[in-house]
Amino acid sequence: MKLICKKDLLLQYINIVNKAVSNRTTLPILECILLTADDKGFVLTGNDLELGIKTAAIEADILEKGEVAIEARIFNEIVRRLNGEDVTISTNEKNAVTIVCGSSEFSIMGQGGDDFPALPEVEQNQAYTLKQNDLRNMIRQTIFSIAQDNAKPVLTGELFEFHDEFFNIVSVDGYRISYRKNNLIQSCGKNDVIVPGKTLSELNKILSQSDEDLVSLYVTDKHILFDLGTAIMVSRLIEGDFIRYEQSFSEDFKTEVLVDKNQMIQSLERASLVSRDNRKTPVRFQIKTKNMEITAKSDMGTAFEEISVEVEGEEISIAFNPRYFIEALRSIDEENVKIHFTASLSPCTILPVEGDSFKYLILPLRM
Amino acid sequence: MKLICKKDLLLQYINIVNKAVSNRTTLPILECILLTADDKGFVLTGNDLELGIKTAAIEADILEKGEVAIEARIFNEIVRRLNGEDVTISTNEKNAVTIVCGSSEFSIMGQGGDDFPALPEVEQNQAYTLKQNDLRNMIRQTIFSIAQDNAKPVLTGELFEFHDEFFNIVSVDGYRISYRKNNLIQSCGKNDVIVPGKTLSELNKILSQSDEDLVSLYVTDKHILFDLGTAIMVSRLIEGDFIRYEQSFSEDFKTEVLVDKNQMIQSLERASLVSRDNRKTPVRFQIKTKNMEITAKSDMGTAFEEISVEVEGEEISIAFNPRYFIEALRSIDEENVKIHFTASLSPCTILPVEGDSFKYLILPLRM
Repeated sequence: MKLICKKDLLLQYINIVNKAVSNRTTLPILECILLTADDKGFVLTGNDLELGIKTAAIEADILEKGEVAIEARIFNEIVRRLNGEDVTISTNEKNAVTIVCGSSEFSIMGQGGDDFPALPEVEQNQAYTLKQNDLRNMIRQTIFSIAQDNAKPVLTGELFEFHDEFFNIVSVDGYRISYRKNNLIQSCGKNDVIVPGKTLSELNKILSQSDEDLVSLYVTDKHILFDLGTAIMVSRLIEGDFIRYEQSFSEDFKTEVLVDKNQMIQSLERASLVSRDNRKTPVRFQIKTKNMEITAKSDMGTAFEEISVEVEGEEISIAFNPRYFIEALRSIDEENVKIHFTASLSPCTILPVEGDSFKYLILPLRM
Repeated sequence: MKLICKKDLLLQYINIVNKAVSNRTTLPILECILLTADDKGFVLTGNDLELGIKTAAIEADILEKGEVAIEARIFNEIVRRLNGEDVTISTNEKNAVTIVCGSSEFSIMGQGGDDFPALPEVEQNQAYTLKQNDLRNMIRQTIFSIAQDNAKPVLTGELFEFHDEFFNIVSVDGYRISYRKNNLIQSCGKNDVIVPGKTLSELNKILSQSDEDLVSLYVTDKHILFDLGTAIMVSRLIEGDFIRYEQSFSEDFKTEVLVDKNQMIQSLERASLVSRDNRKTPVRFQIKTKNMEITAKSDMGTAFEEISVEVEGEEISIAFNPRYFIEALRSIDEENVKIHFTASLSPCTILPVEGDSFKYLILPLRM
């Protein structure tokens, strides 16, 4: 293999495939990036067996076709620090990779491309299409409440529910539910799959923030493929049935509170300071006619916060893990939110003032 | 105690005394900040027994005198997150500290001020005075080569050598020597002391970057006091004799190289990429008539770098730990430096093109 390409462009694509490169593995080939130069152009591939990424063809002058796998960490570090515009990459029959740029020359031992695991085949016929930035936001706004332990494997992923016109993402960790909904630009009918949390967290690092760029999703029984234009990402799906979350959201409530989101986050953050471990020390909400008091107490001391809110319905006293509330509120872009309470031991729901683009359910704690 | 002060001002002073607060200790009082309100004003003190900081009087409306010690971490977190201009701090007879600001109210258990260890007494008669920014730079430019282990305790600190007109700081870790020199605005005669590295690293975080601000140093047998105007810092000194570093710097050399500092740092950084642990894999310099080749080799591969330099004297081949070279060069503000070489197994010296404001000595490695 021998080719010449632009350093900046190469680095940009390395950063994309790096998201699918394994950090520590017993299989050294998975720590590599596969470089392929053939009739289709110059392409990079990363694959940790759960998740694979293959770039689109990178603009390059291919002088000799070929394929080689090179350790991702060193390849990235070298290219990042090169001082020059054009990089020449060539290999010899022993898979030594020579990288030349400006007055620098590196020779790094690579591995044969044949040892590199191929990405799963996913047919790209019928797509669900939406804006990359919309998908990026939906993931960011739900991923914090996926389960951290493996007790229920389905909960370590997020449910993608496709409908004819829209699409929703749901995560559940046993204490709370995060739900986001968005329109689809193109649909290919009803379907639902569970996508691993790790896939979504890596995907979110490469999804575009521009409203111009679209992403197409292709689904099979075992895999999902995200086509970003610059690259495709293929991930295994989590098998099993997701929990039936819909029934947890009740339409009934006794108290509705309209609150300034930032004010509430700040008050909760301050109140939770008096507990060393805010998973265990609850904060207490006392909702009165015109305001809400947030209090916390531990062996360290006490905190008292007061915020003015609009209240409709009954006064109520209820306690929560402040972190769950803070994470949900932080993920919301709107300035104001509605919160529905039913009883001291019933979950509360955070809703938009208008529309149905999100709903967050949080279980209370006993006081 | 009861007083009212500005939140922003209080936070600024908390950040200063925090540098002397112990992070983990078996003596909980050392994790506290002492608040004192008396005839001299409102003052904060931190003291981890090695190092103590006492602020100047903080503008405050003192309604009732008193003293209390409060855990630094929680005090800092609370004040930082308060939403309001004025903070009211008061204590009761049980040392509970009440902090009120805006619609927040905290009550935190404190400890009696009597339990807080007093700072060592250092007479402030005869001072060495220089610009805070000059001292800050001198520390930054030498602190990286203090010894990391306790085999020779004197080497875990830096030597301060005071003269009538100037002052120099030296650090030695057994493989290299860093030396910086600066004028004194005021001196009180020759003296030398060894200041603990930890003191200097904390001091550097609070020294001003403005050329307006001066620092005065007061020295006793056991302690050094830095008066920054906004606060005083008192530290114990390290007892013992520093090593006689001067004799290691030789005036003789066989090769003088004039090099672009940034170009050399970048080449060294790239070359050291091929070694997984650059403490062990040396980089080799080959100095020729008009250029310098930097090469490195490990089981991972090879790196070759070429930089143009001005050379006077003999060609030479010599190997170094690249990290030692990079750290010394990075600490230098000048664009170009001179490097003196004598032989493959003799130390080299990095010098300014003009003047004598610094010298760095680095031992070579066997190839």
